[in-house]
Amino acid sequence: MSSGLVVSRRNRRTPYTDCVEALGVSGYSIVNHTLLPKSFERTVEEDYWHLKEHLQLWDVGCQRQVELRGPDAARLAQWMTPRDLRTMQAGQCYYAPLTDEHAGLVNDPVLIKRASDWFWFSIADSDVLLWAKGLALGMDLDVHVSEPDVWPLAVQGPRAEDLVASVFGNEIRSIRYFEFRQCAFAGRNLVVARSGYSKQGGFEIYLDDSTLGSALWDTLWQAGVDMQIAPGSPNLIERIEGGLLSYGNEMTRQNNPLEINLDRFCHLAGEVDYIGRTALEVIARQGPSRRMRGVLVDGPPCPPCAKPWPVTVGETQVGQITSAIWSPLFKKNVALSLIQKNHWDPGTQVTVHLPQGDQMNSTIVKLPFDPPR
Amino acid sequence: MSSGLVVSRRNRRTPYTDCVEALGVSGYSIVNHTLLPKSFERTVEEDYWHLKEHLQLWDVGCQRQVELRGPDAARLAQWMTPRDLRTMQAGQCYYAPLTDEHAGLVNDPVLIKRASDWFWFSIADSDVLLWAKGLALGMDLDVHVSEPDVWPLAVQGPRAEDLVASVFGNEIRSIRYFEFRQCAFAGRNLVVARSGYSKQGGFEIYLDDSTLGSALWDTLWQAGVDMQIAPGSPNLIERIEGGLLSYGNEMTRQNNPLEINLDRFCHLAGEVDYIGRTALEVIARQGPSRRMRGVLVDGPPCPPCAKPWPVTVGETQVGQITSAIWSPLFKKNVALSLIQKNHWDPGTQVTVHLPQGDQMNSTIVKLPFDPPR
Repeated sequence: MSSGLVVSRRNRRTPYTDCVEALGVSGYSIVNHTLLPKSFERTVEEDYWHLKEHLQLWDVGCQRQVELRGPDAARLAQWMTPRDLRTMQAGQCYYAPLTDEHAGLVNDPVLIKRASDWFWFSIADSDVLLWAKGLALGMDLDVHVSEPDVWPLAVQGPRAEDLVASVFGNEIRSIRYFEFRQCAFAGRNLVVARSGYSKQGGFEIYLDDSTLGSALWDTLWQAGVDMQIAPGSPNLIERIEGGLLSYGNEMTRQNNPLEINLDRFCHLAGEVDYIGRTALEVIARQGPSRRMRGVLVDGPPCPPCAKPWPVTVGETQVGQITSAIWSPLFKKNVALSLIQKNHWDPGTQVTVHLPQGDQMNSTIVKLPFDPPR
Repeated sequence: MSSGLVVSRRNRRTPYTDCVEALGVSGYSIVNHTLLPKSFERTVEEDYWHLKEHLQLWDVGCQRQVELRGPDAARLAQWMTPRDLRTMQAGQCYYAPLTDEHAGLVNDPVLIKRASDWFWFSIADSDVLLWAKGLALGMDLDVHVSEPDVWPLAVQGPRAEDLVASVFGNEIRSIRYFEFRQCAFAGRNLVVARSGYSKQGGFEIYLDDSTLGSALWDTLWQAGVDMQIAPGSPNLIERIEGGLLSYGNEMTRQNNPLEINLDRFCHLAGEVDYIGRTALEVIARQGPSRRMRGVLVDGPPCPPCAKPWPVTVGETQVGQITSAIWSPLFKKNVALSLIQKNHWDPGTQVTVHLPQGDQMNSTIVKLPFDPPR
């Protein structure tokens, strides 16, 4: 947290960057070559409580869209994901892991079906655009693959529905989880989905005209002043406790969907074909050799996890921590870890090795973390 | 420059990150999901003079390699670039722009030919791995596409050859520009190329075992103590003056190779086929509508260029600035800009519009910048 980020155009601004700068953004991450605001005036812990109790506006424009449009759009979308898309309807959002030919994870986007021949992948941090374009070109498909001028803005927290209803009307209250409706704003019809990267409820608004960024931000902000609205971002404490995984942290191309517990999103032994199916079915038959688990790490508060920390039982390494932070709820550190078979049962006692050499007594738990009694 | 970078494993460390941290790195950028150290104790201007007079060690591990290996490796490499690879020999490095089907730039890597069936793309900031994998899979090619455990370390500056010779032997002095030789280090045979992202001369060493990062860094550092070695990074002043372009800054998929002056790397109207050839030949016949040029912008020192700045002649916008910084050599700001036809002749007077509204008198110049008289 001690280093600066050097400015260049290559790390792209979003339509909301002017707004978050005006609100005193103090730290960024980079996702998809785009700025993701990660901190403002408050600490991560203060943001955690605020997110769970009130209302936050998140600039998640870095969740860039990869648009597939044309006669072969549905075919390409299905070819890219192990998830069975046959019954997916326009208006639905599907969490849809993407696999390569070895069943390694390329990304874990939300797939948005705009129409039968029109899809958006709302992506995590890898160039799915190049992956989809390469496949389409190599297979000579009749589909236009592009990055449209679309920039999600997230409203998260218990008051999110009230805020979004006050701006877009009460009909948004009937939008179900992972579904979207189109709502009028400044002459546009915006996709408004009940979704977001927290467990506190909320919406993501897919602005499709970057010149309207400040107008959308300011409209939501003004409507939220009486609801204690604050700028925010995906919160590390909240997402670990909620078992939300992060591409690049908990999973890379070295991981398959089954070992990170995405079994229910993987169509196996059926009629649907997709990249990596053969490899994934082999893994499924043998059973994964490791699984994503929660870990409760005894205090004091641990440093940020910038490289994987070994997890051991006795002299044997049985896993590695990929994300960790102090939880004010548990009064321990909460962490995410891939743990090997025979050691992944909840309750297993393990040792976590911090970078400076400290060895912390720790316990395997299921995901998401159960609240402490 | 005022914001922090939030730590996570997703923004990958390199084998040299421990070393640059020990030397007090104060700012990073992110390239290919990997940390690129950008600042240490000195200012950019102090680093500029040091680079031109002495010797710097750069952690450019973020220049990840995309390896193509197998019977179809040469076919895929040629399919990906407009550059004619027919006479390329093992041991050579080629600057090889990559284009999509519209002749838009996907990346501008250095291609390294290890053997007739073995290539590395040493890439700028986009996931060429996914592009190459998608193409190979879609075309059903017999080639293994991967990201090997290879991490370039650059030695740049007028003393670079002396330093590299002192570590790897005097035979490295005969390596020609954009050629490489294999040199022994700690039981490995490392690719050592005469190349690098500056105009001051130097080498890039392709470490192929990440566990040896500190050993390689420390060996070079110790050998350079008497040569005023310092940690450094690609220097914005030096690269703009030298006309070195940066993918994501001067070029994106919205640009074709001809408009950024890469004509000599584009095989046109010949026998070699590649992605985007038809589109590129249309552009070549019509001539590009804009060209990359240098711009001298009257003082005072400008802020960092985080979003393109308009360039006008009278009331007409004729281009946009993509990178800019104060040059101690010119006592003006030096900048890079795509300038429209009829306005791109050196000597043309233009106005550059800074974000805060200032209008700066400016002059179009050729690239690289001629030293002031």
